[in-house]
Amino acid sequence: MSGSTFGELFRVTNFGESHGPAIGCVIDGCPPGLALSEADIQPELDRRRPGTSRHVTQRNEPDAVEILSGVFEGYTTGTPICLLIKNTDQRSKDYGNILDTFRPGHADYSYYRKYGLRDPRGGGRSSARLTAPMVGAGAVARKWLKEKFGTEFRGCMTQLGEIEIPFEGWQHVGDNPFFAANSSKIAELEAYMDALRKSGDSVGARIRVEATGVPVGLGEPLFDKVDADIAYALMGINAVKGVEIGAGFGVVAQRGSEHGDELTPFGFASNNAGGMLGGISTGQDIVASIAIKPTSSIRNPKASINRAGEPAVVETFGRHDPCVGIRATPIAEAMLALVLMDHVLRHRAQCGDVALPLAPIPGARPAAGADGSAE
Amino acid sequence: MSGSTFGELFRVTNFGESHGPAIGCVIDGCPPGLALSEADIQPELDRRRPGTSRHVTQRNEPDAVEILSGVFEGYTTGTPICLLIKNTDQRSKDYGNILDTFRPGHADYSYYRKYGLRDPRGGGRSSARLTAPMVGAGAVARKWLKEKFGTEFRGCMTQLGEIEIPFEGWQHVGDNPFFAANSSKIAELEAYMDALRKSGDSVGARIRVEATGVPVGLGEPLFDKVDADIAYALMGINAVKGVEIGAGFGVVAQRGSEHGDELTPFGFASNNAGGMLGGISTGQDIVASIAIKPTSSIRNPKASINRAGEPAVVETFGRHDPCVGIRATPIAEAMLALVLMDHVLRHRAQCGDVALPLAPIPGARPAAGADGSAE
Amino acid sequence: MSGSTFGELFRVTNFGESHGPAIGCVIDGCPPGLALSEADIQPELDRRRPGTSRHVTQRNEPDAVEILSGVFEGYTTGTPICLLIKNTDQRSKDYGNILDTFRPGHADYSYYRKYGLRDPRGGGRSSARLTAPMVGAGAVARKWLKEKFGTEFRGCMTQLGEIEIPFEGWQHVGDNPFFAANSSKIAELEAYMDALRKSGDSVGARIRVEATGVPVGLGEPLFDKVDADIAYALMGINAVKGVEIGAGFGVVAQRGSEHGDELTPFGFASNNAGGMLGGISTGQDIVASIAIKPTSSIRNPKASINRAGEPAVVETFGRHDPCVGIRATPIAEAMLALVLMDHVLRHRAQCGDVALPLAPIPGARPAAGADGSAE
Amino acid sequence: MSGSTFGELFRVTNFGESHGPAIGCVIDGCPPGLALSEADIQPELDRRRPGTSRHVTQRNEPDAVEILSGVFEGYTTGTPICLLIKNTDQRSKDYGNILDTFRPGHADYSYYRKYGLRDPRGGGRSSARLTAPMVGAGAVARKWLKEKFGTEFRGCMTQLGEIEIPFEGWQHVGDNPFFAANSSKIAELEAYMDALRKSGDSVGARIRVEATGVPVGLGEPLFDKVDADIAYALMGINAVKGVEIGAGFGVVAQRGSEHGDELTPFGFASNNAGGMLGGISTGQDIVASIAIKPTSSIRNPKASINRAGEPAVVETFGRHDPCVGIRATPIAEAMLALVLMDHVLRHRAQCGDVALPLAPIPGARPAAGADGSAE
Repeated sequence: MSGSTFGELFRVTNFGESHGPAIGCVIDGCPPGLALSEADIQPELDRRRPGTSRHVTQRNEPDAVEILSGVFEGYTTGTPICLLIKNTDQRSKDYGNILDTFRPGHADYSYYRKYGLRDPRGGGRSSARLTAPMVGAGAVARKWLKEKFGTEFRGCMTQLGEIEIPFEGWQHVGDNPFFAANSSKIAELEAYMDALRKSGDSVGARIRVEATGVPVGLGEPLFDKVDADIAYALMGINAVKGVEIGAGFGVVAQRGSEHGDELTPFGFASNNAGGMLGGISTGQDIVASIAIKPTSSIRNPKASINRAGEPAVVETFGRHDPCVGIRATPIAEAMLALVLMDHVLRHRAQCGDVALPLAPIPGARPAAGADGSAE
Repeated sequence: MSGSTFGELFRVTNFGESHGPAIGCVIDGCPPGLALSEADIQPELDRRRPGTSRHVTQRNEPDAVEILSGVFEGYTTGTPICLLIKNTDQRSKDYGNILDTFRPGHADYSYYRKYGLRDPRGGGRSSARLTAPMVGAGAVARKWLKEKFGTEFRGCMTQLGEIEIPFEGWQHVGDNPFFAANSSKIAELEAYMDALRKSGDSVGARIRVEATGVPVGLGEPLFDKVDADIAYALMGINAVKGVEIGAGFGVVAQRGSEHGDELTPFGFASNNAGGMLGGISTGQDIVASIAIKPTSSIRNPKASINRAGEPAVVETFGRHDPCVGIRATPIAEAMLALVLMDHVLRHRAQCGDVALPLAPIPGARPAAGADGSAE
Repeated sequence: MSGSTFGELFRVTNFGESHGPAIGCVIDGCPPGLALSEADIQPELDRRRPGTSRHVTQRNEPDAVEILSGVFEGYTTGTPICLLIKNTDQRSKDYGNILDTFRPGHADYSYYRKYGLRDPRGGGRSSARLTAPMVGAGAVARKWLKEKFGTEFRGCMTQLGEIEIPFEGWQHVGDNPFFAANSSKIAELEAYMDALRKSGDSVGARIRVEATGVPVGLGEPLFDKVDADIAYALMGINAVKGVEIGAGFGVVAQRGSEHGDELTPFGFASNNAGGMLGGISTGQDIVASIAIKPTSSIRNPKASINRAGEPAVVETFGRHDPCVGIRATPIAEAMLALVLMDHVLRHRAQCGDVALPLAPIPGARPAAGADGSAE
Repeated sequence: MSGSTFGELFRVTNFGESHGPAIGCVIDGCPPGLALSEADIQPELDRRRPGTSRHVTQRNEPDAVEILSGVFEGYTTGTPICLLIKNTDQRSKDYGNILDTFRPGHADYSYYRKYGLRDPRGGGRSSARLTAPMVGAGAVARKWLKEKFGTEFRGCMTQLGEIEIPFEGWQHVGDNPFFAANSSKIAELEAYMDALRKSGDSVGARIRVEATGVPVGLGEPLFDKVDADIAYALMGINAVKGVEIGAGFGVVAQRGSEHGDELTPFGFASNNAGGMLGGISTGQDIVASIAIKPTSSIRNPKASINRAGEPAVVETFGRHDPCVGIRATPIAEAMLALVLMDHVLRHRAQCGDVALPLAPIPGARPAAGADGSAE
């Protein structure tokens, strides 16, 4: 995991800028023999892409994915899979007015200080558009994990600004533009966003993601615990400022007698842990939550400086999401899938087999020389 | 960063078990020429070590560090520095009663399922004792960062169970066993812990850590953002279930007009961002908070299963911290230091120089061919 | 360095198959501010591309490179540079006859056994065509190293089959299709190759590559010595079976009194070492040689087996290089450049500055606290 | 693989200096459940250790290995295994006379230029003594590979200075101090070394190593080919200047019709390839050769410079091997074992199962969705 590459064994190398000719990624380390075509990937990209409702950026990008390599006659070959997504609606002129100033809360300041260069085209590399290739790579991981272990991923928005969104059922998530697991609050959310957009401001959100059917034993102590890698993956999504696993910040005021999930012969009796103990998956559902900050590109004027270090006032026009959290659910699902995919491969490297969540607990210590592998 | 190694360029490989002969780490990639002896490291270990107050485990470990390699005539040579800490008070018999059952909330279940083996000696590798070598490695990073850039690290407990601990001043942190930046609440905290200990239960805590004097430009998009690596480092500490950067989960209900920190010619006007934008450090203080769950090893009986998968009741005796959060502050500081140390080296690899936080913002784009390096 | 990614800090991730729609690579970690366009890269690709003489494969590929990302207004931005090379002359039908049998000496057997799949299209991923993106990435490294340090790379063929090619001068290398540093032997080489081609056979070659103007101090003990990484880089080129540094296998019969290069105040008196001591560059020219095996795809029939494990006879038609060594010189130069580029970045991460080869040897040990960095 | 860490998944981190208190390594990623004690490791260390004949350095080191972690009740736990070897006979005064000058052919010059520091104690980190921990780690890899797949490693000296050593049989290797697979030449070798030692000079050697019973399918294109990783591993051994796989430099003058090993239903008919095709193991024996240069520390005076850059004459006394190649055989075997161990884990991560060398070639393409894994 370094720079633009995510993962140790299922390695996704991301490239491109929001306003260059194309974005994409190279997936190295994918197991061979997985049936794969663009049709397996496009639906996930469609969930994330802009322009699908009035509450998100009106940039019009089909986000059509092409597989350039690594698939032969419909199956992965085990060699690198290059996914390419061409940019079609990059209007760089929209950003002309911000060329010399730094948007408060935006990465254009820190990129400039790091690299000594300014790419004002829609944030360039720092744009949330670069999550699209990760959603594509995540679709590959999801397909393999589902076919092998039945692992599935899902997510929903649980709060938009001040409005908490009670969980009603997963079936609602696809029926509204917010990925809310709720049907009764949608009108309120629509009105809230309409008012916000008119005000020229932006707002934060809270997203919950889960994995079900998770193999037992994923994660490597001391540092590549599954929860540490999930925190890394989710905190790395644009605008995320907080990550929780299981009971999250609620644990501060819990007692040990309350927090520790009791075990029964039929599974765990609760899930404060959020799916792992000591950073290693237990087979319970993995549950994580993230806090997403309000978009920094807003119409409302804010004090800033220009490249000469002089005071300036910044108002950002152009096409921006008033709440980047709205499109974040499929991204968070994809990143969670990439973490688990990588850990499944890492686990079977060292330990051979991958235990299924409901497999009975073995009753005896292994015989001499056994390493738990499949042979 | 993989398994037991932390960092890409300042790489710390941790080894040992809580009840084996020794624990330690190997630091590879340390810059040469740093004046270093055990006396630079021991004070940080002393802040973390057990047995220093009645509120932590009574295990008696001097945690005396030895430097086995990588230092010659008082200076680092640039080759691996091995830090060794011998275990002196490992009473394995204390754990005899938990050999066959799994403690609710404890890693012994997941380790067993992953590795097919059971090491019941004090948690073995999953013990918080393994944070000691990281505190040692962190002391090396802190010394170098302070000498080079004036970067410093500090932390405090901000909540113990239900009790919030108001910030009064950093000068109080060393005066109480809780690392509280407070003098007026200490008696209440002492009484709270005494009652808790008697009840045989445990409790969570919330810790805040900061870095000051941080160079500008640290962090690598897209994945090795400084905040993503901080989340990875802190979530990987034993018992942590949540990580926040800057305003953290508070951003959910913020507006963009409120959240984005305004820039002035003299610096930022606020710090909602917590020290980075787009995952790259801005020179502001880096601020993070973590949630620590209550210890899972408690005296109170809980339902569980044994290795045969049959129901069992678990009560844990032995020497455990009733609140692992109490000793977590120096650990979190060390992990934050290790993240920044690694990123300073990574930054100067690619970009050459490291900008200081208060350096004036350059007013012009670099000339052709310039890459910002030091030459 | 893993799988399809080369380098630790200047990381080149290669993708594509010889007969897919495109091949290419993503370069991550390039320093920002390097002036770069396709015109800087294309000439190196043209040196390697097929179809340039009757002695190499007649496949007609322009190997036109496109930069998809990482360059803005003519300068590298520090973010990933994607190089794309479209395949234009993939005649898969040429390979129809080898679908079910394994060519002796060819990777199609081992790929099939590893991945369980057979991609018969021109070797797919194992084709030497995949060296083209590395030559492209090497051109980026070469440009940066030349601008920063004056480092340059050159190579020549020193033997073709039984014919040794005496070194006459570097100026001859570009004047013949063999990259021979010789003008008097070319007619003999031409005749040799013409006869070989008619015979339906293939032959090996020996190539020498050098770097001049190499910074001092590159290389990391114990494992990432510069010579170890050069061996890795060069042995990884298709068909290479041997690598030598400096005096190479000649050292076996040398005495220490003869081998050790004496030092004078004005530099080394000889270069048996080939440019490094203890795996760390000394500033002398780096010199390496490689042995390249004869192409395995030959017209002459050979005994083999088919996928059912039954005996078969294989004759390979299609368009193949009768001596893959002929096009290997620019590939070897590129790989050597990628190794040094990576090590320059690694060196300045840990040690700060990069010493130039002719810099005077410092006369005194650094003061306390100094780490040799540029500040 | 970086700096002092070898391997991607079976990661060996080496630490220590020849004249510090101890040397050792940390093995991370070892499969759990391997029966392991010091008695499995010590015999390999004894093959390499100094002082065992009059032809090697008279430094007296028992090289007694201690396992500090990662083994519980006689079995590996899957957590890091720390091997510690204390230095007992470090006479630093022997090196006093070389403190200010650089030995021609020795790393003390390049280390000084890289790190800005001089550790004159027996070469410090650049000493061949640091191969001892690798031999220890190799013993762990060898044991696992032998138990799982029957893979075995062996090596012999094939040339000492000008004297070629004909292969008579592996049974002779343990009967002479040279690891010669020969009994009739030993007297000549003894006399040769005695004369050399008296002359104050040193000499090179050539070593051959092999692996038998190698699983099929090991190696990752494009860069982590097994042969590339073997070249990296062997070239990284102290004093190695050349590496060959299979027919090695002999391929230059071979024809394709001669070189390509024919396949039969019962295996390969020859082994010019040296055990791999396209960098992926075929199940044939892996065969490699290395050239080892003469020791640079010799008594004979040579011209050099001192730290001030002034001319100086160097004569090295102290205890040195007149031919470092004599003790290199077990080192090369260990490095080869570490490469294969790592690749077995990498292979099963991506592809699931590991094919055995004599397994019948599958006759049909896998069904849809199959990835060849063990489930």
